[in-house]
Amino acid sequence: MKLISIIPGFEPKQDAALLDKAEALRPSLVHTFHEPVRCLKGDRDLSMEELAGTPLGKGERVLLDYGRHLVGRLSLRLNASGAHPDAPAMLRMAFAETLQELEGDPEAYGGWLSSSWIQREQIFADVLPCEIALPRRFAFRYVCVTVVDTSPKYALLIADAVCRAETSADESALRERAFPDEELRRIYDISLATLKACTQEVLEDGPKRDQRLWLGDLRLQALTTYRTFRSFDLVKRCLYLFAGTRFPDGRMSANVFTRPSPCADDTFLLDYALMYPISLLEYLEETGDSEALLDLYAPALEQVDWAIENAVDEEGILTPEQKEQCFIDWSDSLSRTASCQGVLICALDAAAALCDRYGERDRGKRYRLKARAMRRASLERFYAPEEGCFLSDGQISIHSQVWMTLAGVMPKDGAARAFDRAEAAPGPGMLTPYMHHYYVSALWEAGLGDQAEKHLRDYWGGMARAGADTYWECYVPGDLSASPYDSPLVNSYCHAWSCTPAYLIDRYLL
Amino acid sequence: MKLISIIPGFEPKQDAALLDKAEALRPSLVHTFHEPVRCLKGDRDLSMEELAGTPLGKGERVLLDYGRHLVGRLSLRLNASGAHPDAPAMLRMAFAETLQELEGDPEAYGGWLSSSWIQREQIFADVLPCEIALPRRFAFRYVCVTVVDTSPKYALLIADAVCRAETSADESALRERAFPDEELRRIYDISLATLKACTQEVLEDGPKRDQRLWLGDLRLQALTTYRTFRSFDLVKRCLYLFAGTRFPDGRMSANVFTRPSPCADDTFLLDYALMYPISLLEYLEETGDSEALLDLYAPALEQVDWAIENAVDEEGILTPEQKEQCFIDWSDSLSRTASCQGVLICALDAAAALCDRYGERDRGKRYRLKARAMRRASLERFYAPEEGCFLSDGQISIHSQVWMTLAGVMPKDGAARAFDRAEAAPGPGMLTPYMHHYYVSALWEAGLGDQAEKHLRDYWGGMARAGADTYWECYVPGDLSASPYDSPLVNSYCHAWSCTPAYLIDRYLL
Repeated sequence: MKLISIIPGFEPKQDAALLDKAEALRPSLVHTFHEPVRCLKGDRDLSMEELAGTPLGKGERVLLDYGRHLVGRLSLRLNASGAHPDAPAMLRMAFAETLQELEGDPEAYGGWLSSSWIQREQIFADVLPCEIALPRRFAFRYVCVTVVDTSPKYALLIADAVCRAETSADESALRERAFPDEELRRIYDISLATLKACTQEVLEDGPKRDQRLWLGDLRLQALTTYRTFRSFDLVKRCLYLFAGTRFPDGRMSANVFTRPSPCADDTFLLDYALMYPISLLEYLEETGDSEALLDLYAPALEQVDWAIENAVDEEGILTPEQKEQCFIDWSDSLSRTASCQGVLICALDAAAALCDRYGERDRGKRYRLKARAMRRASLERFYAPEEGCFLSDGQISIHSQVWMTLAGVMPKDGAARAFDRAEAAPGPGMLTPYMHHYYVSALWEAGLGDQAEKHLRDYWGGMARAGADTYWECYVPGDLSASPYDSPLVNSYCHAWSCTPAYLIDRYLL
Repeated sequence: MKLISIIPGFEPKQDAALLDKAEALRPSLVHTFHEPVRCLKGDRDLSMEELAGTPLGKGERVLLDYGRHLVGRLSLRLNASGAHPDAPAMLRMAFAETLQELEGDPEAYGGWLSSSWIQREQIFADVLPCEIALPRRFAFRYVCVTVVDTSPKYALLIADAVCRAETSADESALRERAFPDEELRRIYDISLATLKACTQEVLEDGPKRDQRLWLGDLRLQALTTYRTFRSFDLVKRCLYLFAGTRFPDGRMSANVFTRPSPCADDTFLLDYALMYPISLLEYLEETGDSEALLDLYAPALEQVDWAIENAVDEEGILTPEQKEQCFIDWSDSLSRTASCQGVLICALDAAAALCDRYGERDRGKRYRLKARAMRRASLERFYAPEEGCFLSDGQISIHSQVWMTLAGVMPKDGAARAFDRAEAAPGPGMLTPYMHHYYVSALWEAGLGDQAEKHLRDYWGGMARAGADTYWECYVPGDLSASPYDSPLVNSYCHAWSCTPAYLIDRYLL
């Protein structure tokens, strides 16, 4: 599934008042400074101090390990060893969130996302000593520095390689938590590190790539930050950004560019747009922010109204042409009809609750009636009693069971059997932590807490055991080369939609 | 002949007073702004305005031709065509003084000079539109821009690619010249362009490489600027720099680094050091600058004294161990003994003239006596009457005839025969315009003006006919791939020691 939408002549509808409020909510970034904790040169393991005294000649390479995931900018202090430099020093640098990324050859990259996301630089030091502050922001734990050339007369010394890390997350908002065991603490901490790295001037989907707002990610980041860094204003800013730049017909874009100025992408994903009323409701439940209710109520309901009018047939079922516009999970073979139907029902419930808050009770009632009709239709259309689970276009998938459960369509006490059946089926597996989040949530909602906790420990714990410092955009246990983009070189290894264990643990396990 | 000198622990002797005077003479740079005169994309020949409207996608390439050689810094204004950019734009740029340089593959470079001299950059535009000012200075007429990647959603537009050129040469000092023909005017103009490009904060040997002071180049630049841009203070600054940072025993280094602060290289070339008293004398003849005479007299004579004490045997002949420390020309097989002997005799003459100016007439007399003795010894040792020319260690070369002529050793009316004989011999050819300059000068000094003019038109005119915008560091007629460095990729195609036609034409032909 290549997610590349191009609408010729697309011009988003901008709402200056909303965008101004978003701008006013731009957070300050907090900076911290970090040195490598170790430097690997061949089979030698050096401290930064030792590296600073180690001449690096033509072709030599050193791996700087900062010991943790960082989002920030690197400054190098370089010096010469030997005679006076008589030629520039040329360096190539590769920045990586995982060691695996450094094994790939950028020149041989053949994925369908732009190779420009591969984090690298080529720099020349014309005069030594010098300090070079790289202007671009990178997301990394590792930096591989290759001295392409100096000259026979001198070698290079890396005197310093300090990263100025940046985030808008407020560590002081964190509360002490008592964990039943170290595994859970580790899973929780990696979740925090992930969210912190994505908490920038907006809630980014990934600091390596795409570095911008995606609606599906936003909801999960918001749920997690409410219980951790409590970046309420940043969630508000993001909600205003989505409302402030939209498709000309009022639909929310799946993602918003923020640089040089806010601009909706011409990509529409129905399930993402429907996350908006849900996200707004959750924000209001946390904050009771009446300004946001007044400003964002209409844009939120427009998403639901558009779906009812355009995406649902008379029987209360998602129309076939819409299912192409759903994300749900990265998978080519997944039938998304039942899943997206579930998302829509959840959105109708949220819309009804928003109406109650806004004081439009009749309108709320209509959404509730619609939701009830769609639940009934879903059960009739998708549920196969003989299988004991939901089918989407004849396909059994975990995804369908998840969303039918979250939408309240799953028959009472039917979840255990449905999930067992789906897990045993040869259907499309789950590729992303985004989907795994909803799976675990559905298990808990269905009263299958033990199974939920086990999966959380298996799946996110599996990333932790595989060495993750932050949670990955894509994780398929046993297949570290899995990538939605035909190359893990551009995978994001610190991704917002993977940050939810802190939320799940806090809500269900502490 | 690889010119790589490494003296472990070398610390130059610094003279702060001289270096302060050099610093006070640092010139201002004059800036001019230049756009490409044409842009080649495949077989399309576009104006800059047309290029600005031409979307460039992944893998596309455009050649910017500025129509003339420039030394300066490039600023790009970039924009996007298509949907909103959803990934950085990645560009690679190659800067070249000649088209030939663009044909070589930097990754396959195998020469013995540092590959870091190959002029290239790799840049990322994270946000579009943007303006990117490349910080490094390049020497180029051509810039090849390759769009490594954008994304399927957009293509790149190069809205502008302005070069801010820099030089400290003063065009207003130039006088109108009347030329007998267009060929000579063209040869003259390219000479001016070459000198102008090398006239920066010091008289650089080449603005592409090495971008610093070399003594051999300095003398020829000085001779040329006296009759053109008249950068007297810059010559003075360079003379002070060489005197201000030297070998611990007082010898002049062959070259001086100027960044971050003046520092002699640990490379000694006897013939280069001996150019210092010659250059100082010529400077004083032009300017009558008494401050320079007072400050630089002693350092100048030290070069000659060192040579007399250390490099000449009792018979008045250069000792064998010294000939390894002579440059004369790039050539592995050249015997340098007779040539360097000639340089030393010229330096003794200059030293004597400096003594006259300084008021040390007795000392001057001693230098004259020494010069006379060395002339006599040279004639005895090197001249082969049966061959009608000079031999150096048994080898017949043009180089030996040139320097014996310039040193006044050539028998009266013997030059024509000697040069004919040397040109017919299978000896080492001349590789550099540096050597060709002295060849032409020697022909004129020997009264062979027609032959001199013909060679000037053939040799520098040959570069002009081969498309040179500035004169090259290395030119061997018929062999465009000749390089002292085993690869023309790092050849300098705008080189100070090649700039002398303006001097030669002005002195001998106008």
